[in-house]
Amino acid sequence: MTHILDIFAERSPDILARAHNFLESQKHSLGPVNVWAVDALERMQTFMQRGKCIRGNLALLGAEIGGAPLSTGLYDAAAALELFQSSILIHDDIIDQDALRRGQETLHTQYTRTVQPSVPPSHAEHVGISLAICLADMGFNLTYTLLASADLPPAAVRSLTAFWGVEFAKVGLAEMDDVFLAHSSEPAALERILALYRFKTARYTFCVPLLSGLIIANAPAALQNAMEELSELLGLIFQIKDDELGIFGDETALGKPVGSDIRENKKTIFHHYLFTACTCSPNNDITACFGNDSLDDNDIQRVRDFLTDSGIRAAVDTRITGYSNRARDLINSLSLSSELKTLLLQLIHYNLTRTT
Amino acid sequence: MTHILDIFAERSPDILARAHNFLESQKHSLGPVNVWAVDALERMQTFMQRGKCIRGNLALLGAEIGGAPLSTGLYDAAAALELFQSSILIHDDIIDQDALRRGQETLHTQYTRTVQPSVPPSHAEHVGISLAICLADMGFNLTYTLLASADLPPAAVRSLTAFWGVEFAKVGLAEMDDVFLAHSSEPAALERILALYRFKTARYTFCVPLLSGLIIANAPAALQNAMEELSELLGLIFQIKDDELGIFGDETALGKPVGSDIRENKKTIFHHYLFTACTCSPNNDITACFGNDSLDDNDIQRVRDFLTDSGIRAAVDTRITGYSNRARDLINSLSLSSELKTLLLQLIHYNLTRTT
Repeated sequence: MTHILDIFAERSPDILARAHNFLESQKHSLGPVNVWAVDALERMQTFMQRGKCIRGNLALLGAEIGGAPLSTGLYDAAAALELFQSSILIHDDIIDQDALRRGQETLHTQYTRTVQPSVPPSHAEHVGISLAICLADMGFNLTYTLLASADLPPAAVRSLTAFWGVEFAKVGLAEMDDVFLAHSSEPAALERILALYRFKTARYTFCVPLLSGLIIANAPAALQNAMEELSELLGLIFQIKDDELGIFGDETALGKPVGSDIRENKKTIFHHYLFTACTCSPNNDITACFGNDSLDDNDIQRVRDFLTDSGIRAAVDTRITGYSNRARDLINSLSLSSELKTLLLQLIHYNLTRTT
Repeated sequence: MTHILDIFAERSPDILARAHNFLESQKHSLGPVNVWAVDALERMQTFMQRGKCIRGNLALLGAEIGGAPLSTGLYDAAAALELFQSSILIHDDIIDQDALRRGQETLHTQYTRTVQPSVPPSHAEHVGISLAICLADMGFNLTYTLLASADLPPAAVRSLTAFWGVEFAKVGLAEMDDVFLAHSSEPAALERILALYRFKTARYTFCVPLLSGLIIANAPAALQNAMEELSELLGLIFQIKDDELGIFGDETALGKPVGSDIRENKKTIFHHYLFTACTCSPNNDITACFGNDSLDDNDIQRVRDFLTDSGIRAAVDTRITGYSNRARDLINSLSLSSELKTLLLQLIHYNLTRTT
């Protein structure tokens, strides 16, 4: 049978094409607004094409798990999830003050450069950030238009709209704690970090897409509940792996700066183990790297070596293994075809081993 | 018969109560996210209670014009428009770098003060702004949940969701030109200023609510088209009056700083007449005030006197009179009851004479 990553790779272009075509169709109604409109739609199109398309693909997988056919309406719902994701990344990059995303300049950086010749130098950054705030706001709203325009039963559109609104609100709230904790000097309790992971990533990246597919398929509540529990575990594994890649990953493969979580003093699970839960001897040279935004590659390498040698990386891996064991047990308990179970198990494996 | 302002004043508390109760009900699902959630919902509740509730009221009026009864579903749609408006004002205030709104600290200013004890002093503003970006993102998404939860026919919910998404996207795009023009040293062409007014205010504040009510009422296309034209005129009058109040208004009554358009060099219609279309002799002392953010009350008064003495204020008034004459003709041509026509004429009068 086909591997889940091959299935995703095969479907991603179709999902992204739906989003591209939708944005293209909006040029007609948005174009007359002003000189920014068509350019904004095209920047969004370009930005979207470089996404990993995990959420859109998970929506399709959720529908299959619920027994629904892969319809054009379903593809549009998947495309809408991707449009939302690209939009929220734009605000995320402003909040994290990141200059690079998906291997290209972040949108606020692009806009800052674009307006440079037209505004006073000291205003360019504020104007660039403001333009990017608005671009994302456009994307959020068009997400709902795309969903409402999808060829899906009215009841499904209505349920998904209500569901997405609440779940995306949770993402916004989780992002609040993320930025606060990053700038606060206090270490965060493990429960607080895990709540952040749950609401900013696990539910948003795994539950919402999978459940969206199940809602479209009108799947039984018991299956939806089991998939909700499973997808939170998948999401926790994904996020902790993300933290690991943010420190130990390859910048070229990731398309974003490695070490920025350290520079920004993000309260990741690695931060927690290092500052709060580490039984190793304290190393001020290493802890001083956290929140220092002028670190070079050698500093990052020293942090990596310490996290490895002190056993912190292994402790984090043990936690990931615990989650993945629970997720495997859950998958095996589901009343699903062996093909679908294999795909879900492959998804765990991907979350455990991904490099981008 | 009852005056439109009295009708609005009577209905506003009910519209805002729907929004308040909806946000209250969200504490249950959003509260578990983190320490910010309930506080965020309450800040939004407090902020919303101080709104003028124009959009919500216009949605009810639109439904009446379309012949629909005032149902709880309609009130929820009206409340959703108000929730969106409060949310976008939060981004607007970040973009305009304003400290005061609706007579209180803007949300990013509130958050900056809140985080002050917990983050390094040089980070507080960025964290405050970031928290407010997220708060508004929460509000945008909950807007759609509130609409989708309203007791309205599924087809109406779907049409409104698709319509709002596109129209709110236009507001975001218009805001882009607004911030760019404010920081650009080039004067803007009149067509560009009017397009900004059309998409940032006229359609958003008047067309979208009135048409939303008409869509809920399932009104005939001809009536929707006529109301669309009328509401754009009403909106242009409203916006130009807004510019006038921003220079000539009373700060206490407005609840926001008077003169900030001058300090921020906003390309309002007054700016256009002064810099491009004025036949009066140039006055460098006056033009230098635009874009100077350290103006005091005396400087603002000198600008006011010049705009009055030079005939610019009268020229702007002439333009407003032209729009209101066309709007009156349109109202008289509609097949509506004399009561509804009187209410619409009162709306023009309000837009022409409002002080807040």
